[in-house]
Amino acid sequence: MLRVSRCALAAVLSLTLAAPAFAEPKPVTPAQADKALAKIRGGAGFKTALATLDAQHDRIVADTITLTEIPAPPFKEQKRAEAYMAMLKAHGLADVEMDAEGNVMGLRRGTGKPGGPVVVIAAHLDTVFPEGTNVKVRREGTRLFAPGVGDDTHSLAVLLGYIRALDAGKVQTKKDILFVGNVGEEGPGDLRGVRYLFTKGKYKDRVAAFFSMDGTSAPRVTSGAVGSRRYRVTFKGPGGHSYGAYGLVNPMAAMGTTVVEMNKIKTPTKPKTTYMTSVVGGGTSVNSIPDAIWLEVDMRSESKDELAKVDAQFLQVVAAAVDAENVARSTAQGKVSAEIKVIGDRPTGNTREDAEIVQMTAAAVRAAGYEPVLGASSTDSNVPISLGIPAVTIGSGGQGGRAHALDEWIDVSKPESVKGMSVGLAALLAMAGT
Amino acid sequence: MLRVSRCALAAVLSLTLAAPAFAEPKPVTPAQADKALAKIRGGAGFKTALATLDAQHDRIVADTITLTEIPAPPFKEQKRAEAYMAMLKAHGLADVEMDAEGNVMGLRRGTGKPGGPVVVIAAHLDTVFPEGTNVKVRREGTRLFAPGVGDDTHSLAVLLGYIRALDAGKVQTKKDILFVGNVGEEGPGDLRGVRYLFTKGKYKDRVAAFFSMDGTSAPRVTSGAVGSRRYRVTFKGPGGHSYGAYGLVNPMAAMGTTVVEMNKIKTPTKPKTTYMTSVVGGGTSVNSIPDAIWLEVDMRSESKDELAKVDAQFLQVVAAAVDAENVARSTAQGKVSAEIKVIGDRPTGNTREDAEIVQMTAAAVRAAGYEPVLGASSTDSNVPISLGIPAVTIGSGGQGGRAHALDEWIDVSKPESVKGMSVGLAALLAMAGT
Repeated sequence: MLRVSRCALAAVLSLTLAAPAFAEPKPVTPAQADKALAKIRGGAGFKTALATLDAQHDRIVADTITLTEIPAPPFKEQKRAEAYMAMLKAHGLADVEMDAEGNVMGLRRGTGKPGGPVVVIAAHLDTVFPEGTNVKVRREGTRLFAPGVGDDTHSLAVLLGYIRALDAGKVQTKKDILFVGNVGEEGPGDLRGVRYLFTKGKYKDRVAAFFSMDGTSAPRVTSGAVGSRRYRVTFKGPGGHSYGAYGLVNPMAAMGTTVVEMNKIKTPTKPKTTYMTSVVGGGTSVNSIPDAIWLEVDMRSESKDELAKVDAQFLQVVAAAVDAENVARSTAQGKVSAEIKVIGDRPTGNTREDAEIVQMTAAAVRAAGYEPVLGASSTDSNVPISLGIPAVTIGSGGQGGRAHALDEWIDVSKPESVKGMSVGLAALLAMAGT
Repeated sequence: MLRVSRCALAAVLSLTLAAPAFAEPKPVTPAQADKALAKIRGGAGFKTALATLDAQHDRIVADTITLTEIPAPPFKEQKRAEAYMAMLKAHGLADVEMDAEGNVMGLRRGTGKPGGPVVVIAAHLDTVFPEGTNVKVRREGTRLFAPGVGDDTHSLAVLLGYIRALDAGKVQTKKDILFVGNVGEEGPGDLRGVRYLFTKGKYKDRVAAFFSMDGTSAPRVTSGAVGSRRYRVTFKGPGGHSYGAYGLVNPMAAMGTTVVEMNKIKTPTKPKTTYMTSVVGGGTSVNSIPDAIWLEVDMRSESKDELAKVDAQFLQVVAAAVDAENVARSTAQGKVSAEIKVIGDRPTGNTREDAEIVQMTAAAVRAAGYEPVLGASSTDSNVPISLGIPAVTIGSGGQGGRAHALDEWIDVSKPESVKGMSVGLAALLAMAGT
């Protein structure tokens, strides 16, 4: 899910951030970008494409509902992936396939030579919600309520809308466009789908630009990668009878202290740095001293240094909590210990704000009538950004809220929705060349 | 599992405790009891029975292994119950049946009129261990290691040994003896098996005396009922995205504070009063603010008043933890709340120490060559004790340890094991009359 953590006005777009260590792309000015976008949007092909998005809006909504109601928990995206692959095939793309990681994709060939540069637009198949979550969509007027509906299922449906719209408008691009439904964006997936695309996938050396469509917000242009560090800590102890062995160390105490003490850590608002104790489990029965309690935590920052700082503090908290419990109660049957496992490690980074993809996308936002909101987040774009490949994360259009909560929703009121969708389509064409 | 919390020497057996509010049973002195036990143990029938326990010791061990390896988590005792019922039937008992709660039982008829008083001896079928726990028995010399092996599976096998021994010795009792494998002794079961026996079962108005055989210790005579109060507290909140919605209230924090603050509660050693945060779970994914975290706690005391005191303090801790979290973070999307559910409520009480069943059992311990250890615990006997029905909990003999832990064990070295088994057999005959 795209979450913007830092805002910048269009007026300060040209501010230079610390440049990543890769070959400098040719800088583009806002004026150049606005001119390019005006040309794209003025073309007959684009106009027909936009009219098609409008005319077929109900179909995009229907596809959103169909896909949302196919559960896709982390590592269990296969059923939804197969359904989406069938849809990509039905849309006439070339080389439709599922790769070894579970990503599904298909190519819309451009006019360039086969095997040339590719512009990727991807939406993620997975949701944060575990198996058994009720994913039935409830509709109230123009609002759709369901876990995962906006993060990121609606984007999958919008991508299909783009294919139909480009075909209807007979729009030919210079570069090939690869449409992707990828796995593993959310928490435990740790970006495994996109990592595969860029390290092992067959297009890995051909990606000229990467768009992740994640969440609904049309004005957002996420060019910064918020890094994250995630742990699963398992506190272990000897266990025993809650009454007969009363007084022995309890791993629950070490976990509780970790939660309480972590919540005392101070992190800066800028660069935005956060932490969360998210998931917990363990224990044998109500009348037993638990022998193992695990806790999952999420730490994020726009700044590598701040992330390292909160990370180090967390590890100190765990060590101190374990030590405190081994002093507080008896270790006669064994001590409490903590097994710390990294379950997520996402790189920080930035696509330069004067890079073509950032400027063109910001111009596409402006051309649709919005004020661009540049920011940093933790999305599939983290991977290409950290590799120095031009990448941004954009929205699917419309409104949405309560991502990662059971009452997640999107609003698919048509005028706003189509206006929002026009941003991604125009930015895509700007990078693919027409 | 039988856990003794208070010791008394045989010499102080005649100390009078607060009498429960039911018809006073005829007091029995230690001397009277010793005399009765000497007569029982001196009989030819008992001697043959004891020799049979010795001769068939390997079969008792084999039955222990067979039964231990049939998983019997709380509320999932059925498979083991069916196996045990088949064994009771094979041992020639009358009226072998499974009642509506899942208890299995069979009658060894005495010489009295049908429908007369019954002496019950029961062992519990359930273990504390959840489904999927490896229950394979590992043998090292005379030690058997497996979850639930001593608590309480060995007792089930010993009861079968008693039936064979009594039959081999042609021992006739005046009263009928009901052999029971009951469900629901451990934590979540909350004594449901024995509650059913005494409130709805077909023998409910016929029980003259009740023995629960639970755990191994032969010298223990548990005549006091340790009361308990158990809760499952579900902390609820609005949930949300760990980064995007950072700053909202987190039910994990309220749970953590509850664990930490509960651990500050001071309880007396005498009367022994304990509490335990035992099982925990919840959360959506590592990158979500959890919307629900649940915590199970166990509180116990020999004293009704002390139990009420720790109970009240715990409820205050929960309320304060919820309030603190609603102050610490934003309630813009909703507050944290706690849903508190009682999942266990066991009565306290005592069988008078001059009651026939206590005196006879203590004498049976002495006659076997041990020093009786009287005490209070939380076992199936809590139910009859609280109803004023003579009841004690005894051991199956041999040694054991680490109950409720994965490395639970018993030692089945034959001389010690048979000596221990003789206690229950003699006490049973003392109450059933020969």
